Amino acid sequence: MILNLDLSSEVPIYQQIRDQVVVAVATGELVEGSALPSTRQLAGDLGINFHTVNKAYDLLRREGLLLLTRKSGAVVRRGPRSGPAEHGFAEEWAGRLRTLLAEAVARGLDGPAVLAACAAAVDGFDAATTTMRGEAR
Amino acid sequence: MILNLDLSSEVPIYQQIRDQVVVAVATGELVEGSALPSTRQLAGDLGINFHTVNKAYDLLRREGLLLLTRKSGAVVRRGPRSGPAEHGFAEEWAGRLRTLLAEAVARGLDGPAVLAACAAAVDGFDAATTTMRGEAR
Repeated sequence: MILNLDLSSEVPIYQQIRDQVVVAVATGELVEGSALPSTRQLAGDLGINFHTVNKAYDLLRREGLLLLTRKSGAVVRRGPRSGPAEHGFAEEWAGRLRTLLAEAVARGLDGPAVLAACAAAVDGFDAATTTMRGEAR
Repeated sequence: MILNLDLSSEVPIYQQIRDQVVVAVATGELVEGSALPSTRQLAGDLGINFHTVNKAYDLLRREGLLLLTRKSGAVVRRGPRSGPAEHGFAEEWAGRLRTLLAEAVARGLDGPAVLAACAAAVDGFDAATTTMRGEAR
């Protein structure tokens, strides 16, 4: 995958790395078992401190998306095709979703515009999220 | 409005205050012109440092949701009925939305579940976002 960092953004670099890995997993660009570059290699490629990459990888590990081992390095641990979410995730996530959608509504987007943006985002993700698993229901 | 702070949460207190004000504006519990308590009063009521309240209010000010003046204190500056969003907001917000929805998909929620959660959240907001302004189109 190609990471595009915006050094002028208010979003910290480690968060940008984390966010782009998450999106790559959701779109299927990275799948369960995909290997990511080592922290030192990625830091070198991007011209940033390797502690920054470490911070991003550790966050992804805590979220259950990366497995970090001395032997294999950083490996994607799950994706849309890896089965249902862990217990409690949906509820915790829905709370954050409500806040983000509230922000849009408070600042002047109407309900249909908000839902259209949601549908457009989901459309861009792994087809497994909308067809394969949808059909199985 | 009643603020419910979770002191054991990983979400910082100032962010919890900011998030709950945003949701209250989206639901219409707070409307344009509503006065919020002063930072010192709210800090006293909640038993927290007033700098924490200041930080929340300043964030809301920068987001365009609060007007802070020496004379009138903290006043809600806009809401769902205050007209369209400022230029560029929708695009910036959609980027954050994509990341949040990607997280759900990467961690195992399927597309229909994600969109149902979006619809449920929007349903709880000010009716103006789905009826009044929707009908005007």
